[in-house]
Amino acid sequence: MENQQVLIDRLPSGKLQASDYRLTDAPMPEAGADQVLIKTQAFAITAGTRAGLQGSASYAGAPAAGRVMNSTGVGEVVASNAAGIEVGDRVTAPTGWQQYAALDAKQVTVIDADHDPLHYLGPMGVNGLTAYFGLLDVGKPKAGETVMVSAAAGSVGHMVGQIAKIQGCEVVGVCGSDDKGRLLVEQLGFDRTVNYKDANYRQSLKEATPNGVDVYFDNTGGMILGSALFRLNVAGRIACCGVVSQYDTDTPEPGPKGVPGLLVNKRITMQGFLLFDYEERYAEARNDIYAWLTSGKMTSLQDEVSGLGAAPEAFVDLLSGGNVGTRIVRLDQ
Amino acid sequence: MENQQVLIDRLPSGKLQASDYRLTDAPMPEAGADQVLIKTQAFAITAGTRAGLQGSASYAGAPAAGRVMNSTGVGEVVASNAAGIEVGDRVTAPTGWQQYAALDAKQVTVIDADHDPLHYLGPMGVNGLTAYFGLLDVGKPKAGETVMVSAAAGSVGHMVGQIAKIQGCEVVGVCGSDDKGRLLVEQLGFDRTVNYKDANYRQSLKEATPNGVDVYFDNTGGMILGSALFRLNVAGRIACCGVVSQYDTDTPEPGPKGVPGLLVNKRITMQGFLLFDYEERYAEARNDIYAWLTSGKMTSLQDEVSGLGAAPEAFVDLLSGGNVGTRIVRLDQ
Repeated sequence: MENQQVLIDRLPSGKLQASDYRLTDAPMPEAGADQVLIKTQAFAITAGTRAGLQGSASYAGAPAAGRVMNSTGVGEVVASNAAGIEVGDRVTAPTGWQQYAALDAKQVTVIDADHDPLHYLGPMGVNGLTAYFGLLDVGKPKAGETVMVSAAAGSVGHMVGQIAKIQGCEVVGVCGSDDKGRLLVEQLGFDRTVNYKDANYRQSLKEATPNGVDVYFDNTGGMILGSALFRLNVAGRIACCGVVSQYDTDTPEPGPKGVPGLLVNKRITMQGFLLFDYEERYAEARNDIYAWLTSGKMTSLQDEVSGLGAAPEAFVDLLSGGNVGTRIVRLDQ
Repeated sequence: MENQQVLIDRLPSGKLQASDYRLTDAPMPEAGADQVLIKTQAFAITAGTRAGLQGSASYAGAPAAGRVMNSTGVGEVVASNAAGIEVGDRVTAPTGWQQYAALDAKQVTVIDADHDPLHYLGPMGVNGLTAYFGLLDVGKPKAGETVMVSAAAGSVGHMVGQIAKIQGCEVVGVCGSDDKGRLLVEQLGFDRTVNYKDANYRQSLKEATPNGVDVYFDNTGGMILGSALFRLNVAGRIACCGVVSQYDTDTPEPGPKGVPGLLVNKRITMQGFLLFDYEERYAEARNDIYAWLTSGKMTSLQDEVSGLGAAPEAFVDLLSGGNVGTRIVRLDQ
């Protein structure tokens, strides 16, 4: 029996292409000491992993040619040498783009029996936790304030907007198509959305934020960050989550003109954050998010594709804004 | 009797020139109701006022052609219609570049008899208070951390470095000449300085900050801000005070490349501030600063020129980095 995998064939030069990946069959892995063998049910495709392909990552196991493409997945334990993890347990772990993964127990989180495993790729996983801590701890929105979020239809953005609504805020989403914008308003309760590809984007943003912006959750950097700086109110906060506008390129743009001039004039705080600094509080966040999901206050948008072979194209398409919500590759269909 | 003044002859186009100003004689002003008449002893020239000449300021009394150039001054009350302010009192107030100013009592602060009035243009005035709140409240340095400051020999910068030393920090100053750097180390106790005009500036900065940078106090923006982003440690803080690199131009540069990418990766907080938000705490800060000055822990560097007519050239020179410490124009010599 073999283990189908998608390998990084070469680190991308310029824009990522599906041909930068290669589908292959490897020998079936085995669970070593303190390891479990996971059969992958599904994995998430997220823009952030594109940054790791820029070749600057230097940690052990960093993405490199010949390695299995990295991602968070969910699956079922089919063999276990780890205390406290049983065959049949449903788990979330960094499976990567492959059918089976043998992983150390400490990389594996067992999913509660009453939870939907696929939610661990969305609202209960990295994306939802990022939205939760970035908005609440970094952005610190107060009821009645205006929250703006970029990549608003993306895996993180669509949850940021919903959490902001739960806090009693006005929510304005920036996304790349009118269809996405309508969906965010009609299905997720966003107050208004603006399409950054429109020629009159800046004017539209101004009209969509009549009271200015108090908190901007930045998933993109670049031009949209620049436009937000002009709409931010005095004492505004920017939660810097990601820089998707700069991932899929070898030649990043300079930063926005308003830095640092507008930061000074408007006493703006701009703060970068990474999810893993909040690890001790994941359980607390998951409790809140689970309550919101089960009470209907939060909707998880999932954008599913089927089969390992579809993953490279699904990633390329996501980087050009093709997804709505969390893009998930399912291996169980 | 007439009142000699320096007027803004026209708002500068491109770099400021002395010929953008005009020396003139006006009728002697009189103190109206609730006003005092001040005979100016000296006033400060500060880079921040260059920003007000860019023509975008819209508040009442904003700098404009035909108006007296604005600045903070100190002087003696020669006539008073204001309760609590007596003839002979020494005061600090927005006198502007003129021999006499009639000002509302609420714009005037009486200086304690045991204080040096000239210190109200430096450590006890706008510059010193800016250094105090920006470093302590925004930068939040802890003993043993490394503090980096740009325009380190400037009116704000040379006090930031000294306050950081008082907090027990390592202090690295960035300035525009080796002579300034030596002075900061030898006279003010800076640990190291780097000349940003050196061809190997970035390498020198790296060597001068072997433990990275925990707090960067930014007076300049531009290239030096960019270099600081690369040296900042995880959880580093940037206090955004001013953008002197962008004041004396019609065409501001874009922001540094590391924004927001490096902010995210290193969880950096970048916060703009304006002094007047701290007005309720000026007395507290002045108590600390006065104690530091009288105990010899802080030295006020003053860079004095004489006579109203010298002010325009002194401003042009300051914008190209000609000053060391607080540039003061004295009318009493």
